Amino acid sequence: MNKPNFILASTSTLFGGQYLEYLRAPITELFKGIDEIVFIPFARPSGISYEDYTAKARAFFSTLNIKVRGLHEFQDMKEAIRSAKGYFTGGGNTFLLVKTLHENALMNLLKENVESGKPYLGCSAGSNIGGVNMKTTNDMPIVYPPSFDTMGLVPFNINPHYLDPQPDLKHNGETRETRIKEFLSQNNLPVVGLREGNWIRKSGDITTVEGEKLTRIFLPDTEPYEVESGTVLSF
Amino acid sequence: MNKPNFILASTSTLFGGQYLEYLRAPITELFKGIDEIVFIPFARPSGISYEDYTAKARAFFSTLNIKVRGLHEFQDMKEAIRSAKGYFTGGGNTFLLVKTLHENALMNLLKENVESGKPYLGCSAGSNIGGVNMKTTNDMPIVYPPSFDTMGLVPFNINPHYLDPQPDLKHNGETRETRIKEFLSQNNLPVVGLREGNWIRKSGDITTVEGEKLTRIFLPDTEPYEVESGTVLSF
Repeated sequence: MNKPNFILASTSTLFGGQYLEYLRAPITELFKGIDEIVFIPFARPSGISYEDYTAKARAFFSTLNIKVRGLHEFQDMKEAIRSAKGYFTGGGNTFLLVKTLHENALMNLLKENVESGKPYLGCSAGSNIGGVNMKTTNDMPIVYPPSFDTMGLVPFNINPHYLDPQPDLKHNGETRETRIKEFLSQNNLPVVGLREGNWIRKSGDITTVEGEKLTRIFLPDTEPYEVESGTVLSF
Repeated sequence: MNKPNFILASTSTLFGGQYLEYLRAPITELFKGIDEIVFIPFARPSGISYEDYTAKARAFFSTLNIKVRGLHEFQDMKEAIRSAKGYFTGGGNTFLLVKTLHENALMNLLKENVESGKPYLGCSAGSNIGGVNMKTTNDMPIVYPPSFDTMGLVPFNINPHYLDPQPDLKHNGETRETRIKEFLSQNNLPVVGLREGNWIRKSGDITTVEGEKLTRIFLPDTEPYEVESGTVLSF
């Protein structure tokens, strides 16, 4: 059994950038030696169809000479997960993604395959499901999943698209930090606030945070703090 | 049986304002003739205790000569709901609020009492539960409720703290409008995007939207549109 090998990214696309372009180098390294992956389109950002979403992923991966098949294209999705060489789960609505994975009994199967060493790329909602549960997603609960539990590829939760308080915004909705503190009042689990442009990399036994920005760490009963790119996450 | 009489407000507090102050006139009218209400503190904004949250509500209502008792103060919360003269549900985390109400079998009981004509004030999460379900909350899913169904005092959903897209924000998280459109791709139910400072008023058979700003209406298969204060909502 090989060691885990995955990327959990805050976002697929930087502001003003092209889809997955800022991740080109780490994605190339992640999927080295792999010529085909399975794309999981269930999060359906803005309600896009599975076909259109898969085409978007396919367009990027074709530039790396990696073939993409959408998971929805397979008659037997479990067998597709089992026989895949690698995976990419795109962003969108985490509730929709988690509901669809659980209802098709794919969540644990995907987890087992990723833990066996098959490379996995998640962006946004696809990164949320790498955490212990989806309780730190930013998404709207548009559907009711049978469980909030996710893969637990890492022993903490991720808050993708982490956003600092906006002092100029004359609005009384909760800040992201307030929301995460509310999570910590109910859950004893670290949360990694991943700003856009940053990602978590697990290669073998080592988990690091990567990208251009600092990453904000929220631990129970501790003041949040920032870590630099390259920091090993050991909680 | 009296006719429904309630306010579902976007927020408790305007930016730079005092708690409930901008709603002083409509609250006074709503609770006219009532000298005591039950406060439902379960949403616990920022993890505040039930006691502290109730004290905050009590401080405002004392200026109207209305006594406030926290629902958590009662041995028998069902009996407290049944015998109450009016209700106020404060904002905070909608998942926590809905979970606590369902686990204590209080959601339908509260609904029956409000529908019988007892005055009800909701703010933010307390307004979300006046909708058909909580699937258009902005809150983080920090706990897993046994159901997303809420009171359905109105035949639509509410998105409190409705926020227009921020063109200056260099961030690729979904806009509020994108999130609501994702909801509509999965649910056939109108959504009222209530900007801060606005509220829904039902008095007898008439439901209107009130407040200083326009209100954004999202109907299935229809371009979103804006309505003015005083507009009767008939969908």
